[in-house]
Amino acid sequence: MHTAILIVQCKDNKGIVAAVSQFLYENNGNILAVDQHVDDDLGDFFMRAEWELDTFDIDKDHILQEFKAKVGQQFEMDYSLSFNFPVPRMALFVSKLSHCLFDILSRYYSGQFNVEIPLVISNHPDLEPVVKAFGIPFYHLPVTKENKAEQEKKQLELMVAHKVDFVVLARYMQILSGDFVKHFPNNVINIHHSFLPAFVGAKPYHAAYKRGVKIIGATAHYVTEELDAGPIIEQDVARVRHHNTVEDLVQIGQDVEKVVLSKAIKYHLARKVQVVGNRTIIFN
Amino acid sequence: MHTAILIVQCKDNKGIVAAVSQFLYENNGNILAVDQHVDDDLGDFFMRAEWELDTFDIDKDHILQEFKAKVGQQFEMDYSLSFNFPVPRMALFVSKLSHCLFDILSRYYSGQFNVEIPLVISNHPDLEPVVKAFGIPFYHLPVTKENKAEQEKKQLELMVAHKVDFVVLARYMQILSGDFVKHFPNNVINIHHSFLPAFVGAKPYHAAYKRGVKIIGATAHYVTEELDAGPIIEQDVARVRHHNTVEDLVQIGQDVEKVVLSKAIKYHLARKVQVVGNRTIIFN
Amino acid sequence: MHTAILIVQCKDNKGIVAAVSQFLYENNGNILAVDQHVDDDLGDFFMRAEWELDTFDIDKDHILQEFKAKVGQQFEMDYSLSFNFPVPRMALFVSKLSHCLFDILSRYYSGQFNVEIPLVISNHPDLEPVVKAFGIPFYHLPVTKENKAEQEKKQLELMVAHKVDFVVLARYMQILSGDFVKHFPNNVINIHHSFLPAFVGAKPYHAAYKRGVKIIGATAHYVTEELDAGPIIEQDVARVRHHNTVEDLVQIGQDVEKVVLSKAIKYHLARKVQVVGNRTIIFN
Amino acid sequence: MHTAILIVQCKDNKGIVAAVSQFLYENNGNILAVDQHVDDDLGDFFMRAEWELDTFDIDKDHILQEFKAKVGQQFEMDYSLSFNFPVPRMALFVSKLSHCLFDILSRYYSGQFNVEIPLVISNHPDLEPVVKAFGIPFYHLPVTKENKAEQEKKQLELMVAHKVDFVVLARYMQILSGDFVKHFPNNVINIHHSFLPAFVGAKPYHAAYKRGVKIIGATAHYVTEELDAGPIIEQDVARVRHHNTVEDLVQIGQDVEKVVLSKAIKYHLARKVQVVGNRTIIFN
Repeated sequence: MHTAILIVQCKDNKGIVAAVSQFLYENNGNILAVDQHVDDDLGDFFMRAEWELDTFDIDKDHILQEFKAKVGQQFEMDYSLSFNFPVPRMALFVSKLSHCLFDILSRYYSGQFNVEIPLVISNHPDLEPVVKAFGIPFYHLPVTKENKAEQEKKQLELMVAHKVDFVVLARYMQILSGDFVKHFPNNVINIHHSFLPAFVGAKPYHAAYKRGVKIIGATAHYVTEELDAGPIIEQDVARVRHHNTVEDLVQIGQDVEKVVLSKAIKYHLARKVQVVGNRTIIFN
Repeated sequence: MHTAILIVQCKDNKGIVAAVSQFLYENNGNILAVDQHVDDDLGDFFMRAEWELDTFDIDKDHILQEFKAKVGQQFEMDYSLSFNFPVPRMALFVSKLSHCLFDILSRYYSGQFNVEIPLVISNHPDLEPVVKAFGIPFYHLPVTKENKAEQEKKQLELMVAHKVDFVVLARYMQILSGDFVKHFPNNVINIHHSFLPAFVGAKPYHAAYKRGVKIIGATAHYVTEELDAGPIIEQDVARVRHHNTVEDLVQIGQDVEKVVLSKAIKYHLARKVQVVGNRTIIFN
Repeated sequence: MHTAILIVQCKDNKGIVAAVSQFLYENNGNILAVDQHVDDDLGDFFMRAEWELDTFDIDKDHILQEFKAKVGQQFEMDYSLSFNFPVPRMALFVSKLSHCLFDILSRYYSGQFNVEIPLVISNHPDLEPVVKAFGIPFYHLPVTKENKAEQEKKQLELMVAHKVDFVVLARYMQILSGDFVKHFPNNVINIHHSFLPAFVGAKPYHAAYKRGVKIIGATAHYVTEELDAGPIIEQDVARVRHHNTVEDLVQIGQDVEKVVLSKAIKYHLARKVQVVGNRTIIFN
Repeated sequence: MHTAILIVQCKDNKGIVAAVSQFLYENNGNILAVDQHVDDDLGDFFMRAEWELDTFDIDKDHILQEFKAKVGQQFEMDYSLSFNFPVPRMALFVSKLSHCLFDILSRYYSGQFNVEIPLVISNHPDLEPVVKAFGIPFYHLPVTKENKAEQEKKQLELMVAHKVDFVVLARYMQILSGDFVKHFPNNVINIHHSFLPAFVGAKPYHAAYKRGVKIIGATAHYVTEELDAGPIIEQDVARVRHHNTVEDLVQIGQDVEKVVLSKAIKYHLARKVQVVGNRTIIFN
């Protein structure tokens, strides 16, 4: 089924829900999901509506201008329209660790993710056989201090060549430059192997062990210029005990990482994530 | 702030959200919360809307007839209107165990619950000093096989005399008759000390121990005529290990019970629970 | 590193820990892990000890008789000795669902599981390409009411031919006969897609939806003759909400199933599971 | 039943478990619990053993010197001996928030905590009626920048006068001086309302809200001179969603805080917590 998805943000005001729902109703929109949220601190209103496109009275290419004229202008809204087609194209960046890669490919294989994976990029050759077994092109782009800028240029060219919509860093152990990230605002998802904002940066399991925490976690977030500081999409945790070594923490944590990252991808694919400042609304 | 709360149920149809939100907008309703849910299996639509009453154009006593004329009739809705005043009156039934009672009284004391507690009834005298310390009347009504019907009659009289709106069984170890329950449809909340539907009936921690489960739980539900089978409002769990005795399970479980029961009370007080068949929608 | 693992069970008595640890110390055993448990109800003592084999004074083939003479006889112990070599051989039984299979193969690939997988058996051909991509033989043995006994005979022959130590039912949707199970006592691990003992049998997610539970779960257990009633090795849960459909429950539940099953395999591989009646001790 | 509890720490070495268990066995010690742990990084061995005192062959006042002669000296152990009597004396420090206080008093009332509470100290008068209802002396010692040193002196005098063994800061919103803490090494337990090390310091729920985390937590830890940096005893978390306000976080978090703090007290009372550097071993 083809659907349209409208995301709206504006100052909170009386009559917004009435106006948006009236617009959809008048044009014969069969609503599949509608969620709204008011941020009392900001005084802002947020909404996500999804409806059937095939039976809608307005042609898909004219929805935006009609919406602007009937609703958007009146409430000085920011809004964006998307569709559940064509299937989004996701690039995966990996290093040597395979757990997140396998988890994503497993869901891709079983049809749980409505996504195309046109390529996988890695700074190490190790996971090439896994990726190829799924029939996905694999690019080995080793990164050093010296060649980092150059390799990132190649990565960006590959993104363009493969018409990539968004990027997932599935335990890619390199930091992307601010320049790269600017090409994909709120479209680069990273999994950080700690319960952010605790243990920002390298070796969070070592840091967690040293601090003696009783619970470890993982955080999926949009990448911004500041390291591990972007808007959080999803988090989860697991209990650890005093007898667990750093290696145990790594293994226990990997089970959390892969599920958290895949949930974030699922929300992102369904356009259920709205970024507000450095927070996210998850319309789920 | 005085608020009105409208709960709506009808066959799903185009234009419902538009109609309800238009009704509120036209009458100058400042919406504080609105949640809707479509049950695809039943084809039913559900909605909860809460708005400021003081600035609403329609007098509180005429809202229902206006809503019926403008919206309700057209969509053949079931609906109910309530207000966040006067403060609801909750009766507590307890036995000997104090953990749920203390948890509820603690929230009552700190103002977390917007509730009156006109009385506590118990089949044992043990908790009388605790209840009296909070200035709440305590009724000791011992129950035996022989006097059960008689005592229940007294309990019902006390409910009427104290203008009780709903009843909470805070580890009250007696089974109320179907007749009592009929006086309070979806208004008797029980906490069962297992993860229902596992371990229905007496001594669930013993049964859980015997079965060797690795996780125990607690379930808050509305009481119906069938034992431990009513609509579930809230559940939670805790991990246990092989070295935990039945006594450990009891103690670990009590921490789950009290929090689960208090959450259910909180949802109920805010009219956020809608019962559909034997399931609940939690508008939260 | 080569290790020996001793599992002991006997009536609880003074001096057991002293006797066992003295035996290991006198023979120059470098203990890597020792865990004990007393079941107060049964009055039974349980112990698991693991130590370095290469520096141990007693030859591996004489440890049992020495232990019997010095310790075992005195305390009328049941005991078993095993080694962390050769690598155990695990047969996987699957149907059409791939999530548990991928999770296990992912850990096998990354070396997280110290295991050989000599074969995968399925009653459907669907997952053959996945299995073959890992270089593992795949046997398609379709099962009908009529041929069930015959196919099970073939399965048992394959177990023998491939020297299988234990069997994992990774969402294999068939029920094995009591006869098959008897060949592998406490060596057939199943993942059931509910929080046992709730929702035994077929379609537990449908049953969970219908009951309106707020939390779903998964249970890994040893298979016994009685359906879904064997000793529980591991369980976990996930929260669901009223808007989740049965299909949502299936998807949310799969993330729990795969992690729970893999944890159970991990404990089993390390001989950390001891079955006592219908309960398990997890020496972890 | 009277019990003795021995806590041991030394360099890991062959024969320690044998030596300690032999010592207890030879002297007719009926072991109730024994747990050991080896920290591979430090190369250190840790043990906690609890046994019946009344049937032990060595008089309680001579156990330490006997143990030193037979075991302690040989392995160059640090060790400490304690008994489950007399009942430990716990001072509570509170401010205005009642949830942790009620939770502790509820367990005290029901006998879940084997503890005496000789006094409660607060910098605000608000909770005096609650405390007095339990028959516990309440001291109101308001703290300002100017009088802080003076009031702490009074607090210390009260600790001495009431023979306090350990102190629990049950949401006491003041920072104790390093001098106070030095009087109670590893005997001041604080509950911090965040998942440490995230959100150290004041207003952690505000900080958590601002950061947009999807999970909040609470941490019980021993107080050291550095703020919120002492050894962690217990942690737990709760899920939050985008629609939760800071006030929601406070309320959701309180349910976590009170359970986490009470668990920490329970471990501490049973001498199940051993501090190693800035980490804790929980012998549970």
